[in-house]
Amino acid sequence: MVSKISPKDVAAALAERWSPRIVAELDDSYVKVAKLHGSFVWHSHDDEDELFYILRGALRIEVENAEPVDLVEGEAYVVPKGVRHNPVAAEECLVMLIERKSTAHTGGVVTEMTRSLADQQRPL
Amino acid sequence: MVSKISPKDVAAALAERWSPRIVAELDDSYVKVAKLHGSFVWHSHDDEDELFYILRGALRIEVENAEPVDLVEGEAYVVPKGVRHNPVAAEECLVMLIERKSTAHTGGVVTEMTRSLADQQRPL
Repeated sequence: MVSKISPKDVAAALAERWSPRIVAELDDSYVKVAKLHGSFVWHSHDDEDELFYILRGALRIEVENAEPVDLVEGEAYVVPKGVRHNPVAAEECLVMLIERKSTAHTGGVVTEMTRSLADQQRPL
Repeated sequence: MVSKISPKDVAAALAERWSPRIVAELDDSYVKVAKLHGSFVWHSHDDEDELFYILRGALRIEVENAEPVDLVEGEAYVVPKGVRHNPVAAEECLVMLIERKSTAHTGGVVTEMTRSLADQQRPL
């Protein structure tokens, strides 16, 4: 039987920033958490929407050709498929993400911040 | 462009209990919120996992042939596909649900608590 999870506690325990960790599986999607601080990388997911839910702190999601989206704890935003975006956390921020299993977290861009799925599945 | 949402605020504003409301679309899934109080109905979703995330209060999820799962604010649980379950809220509780679009919220059981998708898409 699957166990209950506390996404905020798992996110808070992460040692590394911008390194998403899978906390649950939901059909063809993963529930992930991450600790963010600073600016990530502009990218898009051509075929997958991506949900951000703020567990603690605040996050700005810069969106190409649109106003940035400023989120605080308890707020959520779906980045639509194909939309280039860049998460920026002025202070440390904890987030829950819901992404399809096929989603590469840095989209088509591979940088030193890119983490493999195996890495995202590691125990804490 | 999609707007940000505050699932807890939407859930708190619901006039009716056990009447899920869709707040976002995520590929083939819906993000829903609901206000719960009392016992729901035993049901299962044969082909879809279902995520419960507690926004406020506490929820017990009774699970067939297993110990009940007791969740408090900030905790989450995935009911695996095919598992009969029954949410019970001793006090009023606000939840966020992530379900596939194909998921009937009372499973194969139709009761007076069953709400159509059109009902779940109503404005507040």
